[in-house]
Amino acid sequence: MGDSVRFYFDFSSPYSYFAAQKIDATLEACGRNCTWHPFLLGALFKITGSAPLTTIPIKGDYCRHDWERMGKMMNVAWTLPDPFPIPTQAAARAFYWLDDQDPDLAKRFALAAFDTYFGRGRDITAAEAVAELAAGLGADGDALLTALGDDALKQRLKDETAQAIDAGVFGAPFFIVDGEHFWGNDRLWMIKRWIKGQAA
Amino acid sequence: MGDSVRFYFDFSSPYSYFAAQKIDATLEACGRNCTWHPFLLGALFKITGSAPLTTIPIKGDYCRHDWERMGKMMNVAWTLPDPFPIPTQAAARAFYWLDDQDPDLAKRFALAAFDTYFGRGRDITAAEAVAELAAGLGADGDALLTALGDDALKQRLKDETAQAIDAGVFGAPFFIVDGEHFWGNDRLWMIKRWIKGQAA
Repeated sequence: MGDSVRFYFDFSSPYSYFAAQKIDATLEACGRNCTWHPFLLGALFKITGSAPLTTIPIKGDYCRHDWERMGKMMNVAWTLPDPFPIPTQAAARAFYWLDDQDPDLAKRFALAAFDTYFGRGRDITAAEAVAELAAGLGADGDALLTALGDDALKQRLKDETAQAIDAGVFGAPFFIVDGEHFWGNDRLWMIKRWIKGQAA
Repeated sequence: MGDSVRFYFDFSSPYSYFAAQKIDATLEACGRNCTWHPFLLGALFKITGSAPLTTIPIKGDYCRHDWERMGKMMNVAWTLPDPFPIPTQAAARAFYWLDDQDPDLAKRFALAAFDTYFGRGRDITAAEAVAELAAGLGADGDALLTALGDDALKQRLKDETAQAIDAGVFGAPFFIVDGEHFWGNDRLWMIKRWIKGQAA
């Protein structure tokens, strides 16, 4: 396995949800690892002047239909949750708290959080909902709930978001492979081709 | 061959250029025809408040790099022309004038215009440049040059652009397959999957 590829996402991004289902398998097939980096898309939107897809006329309706279609084609459960989008601070902070202990556990948590929100349509805004999810995977839910209120963990997510923006991330999902940037769930094929081309 | 699929594009859209290289072959493999419909992306941008990709901070730089990468991966010539973007009224009007005589000739003209602009970086704004291209393919260049100044042909492009917008087109390239909408060069795989799913 070579150096890791960075997968940037927001827990409230539908196309990130779809990408999360297959990014690790896609990269493993290329002999590469992947590290996951949740960040706050809302903080990025403030800088770029972007807005959640569902709020954009015409394109918003297209995306609603596209997500349903993508779920069916990928054979992945899909629900447009209400509320959508949501603040994802608690889920993202929990991810980093878990990641420091066990990166595999953090990924399992991320997939469970995505499935709860987009697969079953249940809100994951609250710290309690996030801690319960982590506890269900074997983590210490009470310790996580305490940590979610700590300034250190809040700062960690701010730093990760700032680093993503500094690295050139302008949407989600976003991938950085040895400095090469790829934007969108539609580009997993290109990441594969690019890695194989570099190895050749 | 079933009913035709509609391919909407603008002659100044890089991702339309890439899609034009393979849309017909992709659909023929599914037993479907494709009709081509150039329209004015600028007229759409006025409604949606969008802007040419190269003018958007960060994303613009990403796209410049992505077009180069796409050209290499598709083995298609790529140059970011200067000026870019350009007014594409002459090319689009010429397309419809040719399309009324011979749809295959119109497609060959479209591919030649794309290649001139994005493959070789030569401006195709002027009516004279467009007429010369068409003449090189066997069309009556003088008659086309006269037609390009006619109100009827100008109105034709206005109508085609209005019809595209009415149909829900919000970017380019855009595809409508039996009422199903697909946006972007990245979605040819999905069009294929969708057609096969409907046929099954």
